[in-house]
Amino acid sequence: MANKSVRDVLRVTGGDLPEPRSTPTGPKTKSAAVAALPTIGERLADLQEALYAESTRAVLLVLQGMDTSGKGGTIKHVVGQLNPLGVKIASFKKPTRAELRHDFLWRIRRQLPTPGHIGVFDRSHYEDVLIARVDNLVPRRDLASRYRAINAFEAELAESGITVVKCFLHISPEAQKERLLARLNEPAKHWKYNPGDLDVRSKWSQYQEAYAIALERCATPPWYAIPSDRKWYRNWAVANILLETLEELAPKPPAPDFDVADQINRLTNHDPLG
Amino acid sequence: MANKSVRDVLRVTGGDLPEPRSTPTGPKTKSAAVAALPTIGERLADLQEALYAESTRAVLLVLQGMDTSGKGGTIKHVVGQLNPLGVKIASFKKPTRAELRHDFLWRIRRQLPTPGHIGVFDRSHYEDVLIARVDNLVPRRDLASRYRAINAFEAELAESGITVVKCFLHISPEAQKERLLARLNEPAKHWKYNPGDLDVRSKWSQYQEAYAIALERCATPPWYAIPSDRKWYRNWAVANILLETLEELAPKPPAPDFDVADQINRLTNHDPLG
Repeated sequence: MANKSVRDVLRVTGGDLPEPRSTPTGPKTKSAAVAALPTIGERLADLQEALYAESTRAVLLVLQGMDTSGKGGTIKHVVGQLNPLGVKIASFKKPTRAELRHDFLWRIRRQLPTPGHIGVFDRSHYEDVLIARVDNLVPRRDLASRYRAINAFEAELAESGITVVKCFLHISPEAQKERLLARLNEPAKHWKYNPGDLDVRSKWSQYQEAYAIALERCATPPWYAIPSDRKWYRNWAVANILLETLEELAPKPPAPDFDVADQINRLTNHDPLG
Repeated sequence: MANKSVRDVLRVTGGDLPEPRSTPTGPKTKSAAVAALPTIGERLADLQEALYAESTRAVLLVLQGMDTSGKGGTIKHVVGQLNPLGVKIASFKKPTRAELRHDFLWRIRRQLPTPGHIGVFDRSHYEDVLIARVDNLVPRRDLASRYRAINAFEAELAESGITVVKCFLHISPEAQKERLLARLNEPAKHWKYNPGDLDVRSKWSQYQEAYAIALERCATPPWYAIPSDRKWYRNWAVANILLETLEELAPKPPAPDFDVADQINRLTNHDPLG
């Protein structure tokens, strides 16, 4: 295990996912994970600045998971470590009527990060093979073609310089119950609660199956299964996966296209403002 | 001074702006200002969450200032304290040919924050009366109509529930020289440097005049002049102005539109997942 990266350990390769409460690599305690985050955050921010300066490639972090799995918390604690200037976040809710008049990828394409940016999708085009499958929103044949469309789309993104990092925030039904009750028991959190969440919860196994199929059929670029019953582990794991991705990209600011010494001379010896 | 808010002190009311190195209210030392920021950040994040939950109104922070005045630094240090999920940042660079085919406010409107969000403009529609004025990019008559168009636009935003907070990051030419040299002397910062910055710098007084005219003619909502030679004061001041704005808006999460006890009962006693 010693030489394995976090991506190596959490990458989905077969049908088996790590247990939602497990900590397959890295810190075993909350205090260790929380203590590690600021250092990771600094390295992330430095690499993000280089990506922004380079301005040719982009990263897209896709966050998927059941309600309360921690998509919002990951954005707050992991994405919150980045410089907001270089971040572009998109939340995909139930499609509007206008959006439904288009191909399902239409609204997704409009939210892609531009070169130099880190995009974050809070839910994504995968909803179109998750809820769409569970609730039979489209005929089976159309569903099958959506997996292919997603694979073609993600290949196109890779080709265009966007590295897609797909994280499935994997929680247990017990953790979800606890978190839904916490929202209900705290008035300040009522706005986060939606009675429809219980209907979705009642289809837990259908959703797990839909996720399994999506993870299997759309495996390039790979998915990472993030054990997410422990919030501190989830944050630590996503932060590291993002960090390893940026380290591999190794963005470099471009060489200056001006004569540095000449500019210093102009500013030092020929400054009209003295 | 004791009862004056930061907004009261820094609001532009006449032609006089505070000195760029001054600290007209609040902390007088870097250590005090830096120490105060996390607490302000927590209050900002709480109010931001309430604004997001309420989801009816929005805030738009407009950052203007000469090159190196700290627009990027303010985003990093002040906006970086917020939850990125509720933030929408737009950077306005030289308009593209496509943008130039439209009215100057066209590209601005496309970047307005939606309800519940805090928008941040890194430069803005004011460039269209600043560089446009200094470099005579439009006839004087068109320029005059732009101030009126901006006033009408900002009144419309207020009407639609977007509170606009306009901050002019005010630096001295000496501070700019120092910061440009710092960029030139540090290879990792070369990407931030643009030789065109020296041409703009050479028109310093014309720009100050253009700013003075814009601040005077477009005074509703008011401008805040942020002394920005000291980065720590700039961050402290903008953070407080944003905080006071949110405190005044006093966003409230909506009351639940469901029966809380009933939902708790469903989840506790009738959960299909046990």
